[in-house]
Amino acid sequence: MQLALGIDIGGTSTKLALVDKTGRITARSSFSTADRTGEGDFFKHLFASMDELLAGDVQLAGIAAGAPSANEQEGTIENAANLPFSPKVEFVKTVRGRCGVPVQLVKDSNASSLGEWHFGAAKGMKNFMLLTLGTGLGCGIVANGQLLGGEFGHGGEAGHVCVQPNGRACGCGRFGCLETYVSATGLKRTVFDIMANFMEDSPLRSTSYEDMTARHIYEAALAGDFLAKKAFVQTGEVLGRALADMAAWFEPEAIVLSGGLAMAGDLLFEPTISSLERHALAFHKGAKIKVLASTLGENDAALLGAAALVWKSKT
Amino acid sequence: MQLALGIDIGGTSTKLALVDKTGRITARSSFSTADRTGEGDFFKHLFASMDELLAGDVQLAGIAAGAPSANEQEGTIENAANLPFSPKVEFVKTVRGRCGVPVQLVKDSNASSLGEWHFGAAKGMKNFMLLTLGTGLGCGIVANGQLLGGEFGHGGEAGHVCVQPNGRACGCGRFGCLETYVSATGLKRTVFDIMANFMEDSPLRSTSYEDMTARHIYEAALAGDFLAKKAFVQTGEVLGRALADMAAWFEPEAIVLSGGLAMAGDLLFEPTISSLERHALAFHKGAKIKVLASTLGENDAALLGAAALVWKSKT
Repeated sequence: MQLALGIDIGGTSTKLALVDKTGRITARSSFSTADRTGEGDFFKHLFASMDELLAGDVQLAGIAAGAPSANEQEGTIENAANLPFSPKVEFVKTVRGRCGVPVQLVKDSNASSLGEWHFGAAKGMKNFMLLTLGTGLGCGIVANGQLLGGEFGHGGEAGHVCVQPNGRACGCGRFGCLETYVSATGLKRTVFDIMANFMEDSPLRSTSYEDMTARHIYEAALAGDFLAKKAFVQTGEVLGRALADMAAWFEPEAIVLSGGLAMAGDLLFEPTISSLERHALAFHKGAKIKVLASTLGENDAALLGAAALVWKSKT
Repeated sequence: MQLALGIDIGGTSTKLALVDKTGRITARSSFSTADRTGEGDFFKHLFASMDELLAGDVQLAGIAAGAPSANEQEGTIENAANLPFSPKVEFVKTVRGRCGVPVQLVKDSNASSLGEWHFGAAKGMKNFMLLTLGTGLGCGIVANGQLLGGEFGHGGEAGHVCVQPNGRACGCGRFGCLETYVSATGLKRTVFDIMANFMEDSPLRSTSYEDMTARHIYEAALAGDFLAKKAFVQTGEVLGRALADMAAWFEPEAIVLSGGLAMAGDLLFEPTISSLERHALAFHKGAKIKVLASTLGENDAALLGAAALVWKSKT
């Protein structure tokens, strides 16, 4: 049986999986990216993991990888802030030179979108968006049945559209970007804003900004904490308003939410959907735009999406 | 020589033009839409205008029309607020029944985009946006070389994305929509806001809200009026910030500005481009996203775009 090798290169770890045509993972491997000393060391570990996975009688159809800061046209990874790499790493050339099968590289956000599109919550859709709510906010957009990349490959930067003029400072240098409100970090910032503006007691008041995580807030909310619950409601309010704008721009059949913050389930989805309904244009009211949870999960979406790319290019 | 018949159906008038393959208009006609008593009366006038234009030795390649509230799949015009029509008008069926050539119908904003794309400022581009700044704000988007329509044909609603939470009331029922700031009406609202907040004398203070037009403000600004100039600067500030977000979403090669307000030239373009540069993401700074004036003008873009559709479907 032919198998595709999908690779998901992240700042913390790099994951590999052999995937069949139906999206079933038949073998997995991973290694630490953060511990690597440079791209030479990275490729050494990558090839060792590949050799291990491909030992025995595997017919390899092709290889595809998702990575941050991927230049899809050139097959290079460029100026990746969270990878221990030189400014420009020849990923496709290096891997193809060793393996002799087709090799492709896509942006990590596009890899996840491809995963949800071919095997997950957005299966078969012509228009959808995937928002990955982690430390930041990642986005992949499929419009008219195509990934939307923009003129220079930087389209779909949903994390950095402005939702509040002169709002929160963002790492990108601007103010009021969506990800400063809607992400694990954004949720924490909202908790600190609420602590400043309200007087209710809360176990969250005994944890420092540095130590607090989205998980603390999630657990406090589940335990009924006023501040934590309010933070989720405010996050959903901002997200729902942003989804109404996404509907106005792209009118997707569905917007799929993924990533750690989306795991909070109803705590996030309920206020989000309620806010979307309130802010939606007339022809989008009545739940016209579906808000769905990822069915693949953050861990496998990019791996499966990379594999989907291999199968797609075989047809 | 074969010619295409382009039709631009607007609330005030309906224009017709015979157009050759290069975008040259060889003959024109028009009649009042507003004076019609219903679609029967409309088609009577339309067919009379067509008969007149097509008299003599015209080889008609096809007919295409741009209209508000067009259902492109069905070929119908549905619930058009500004046309004297029944809720559902069978445009394509009616015109084809009489003419025996291919007939197509597109949304007016898409018609204008097709015009700029095939014959105007966006000629040959794979990714661009057209913003028409008139009474409201219309938009057409080409991404990956395709018109972006959305799942139900309501995508690209740039006039109704939120640029100011809890901002100005909009006719759509929401608050803070882009067109409440960036349109001829938006400019007027901005003047009244400035009159309330500043104390400088201005000839604009002697004109009522009902009587004031964008042309008054334009002329006052040209004459050096403080309030009027400030209104253009504030409009450009909001528009530039919105363009930065459009760049983040779509990363077009260019954003083309059309419509009455865009005719103000540098008064609008200078503060807009300066604001875009300030608000743009790092990889869009340095004038990466062109801001261009329409080269066809509001009057001909939709006519030429409709004609382009005829030629496109012949190839």
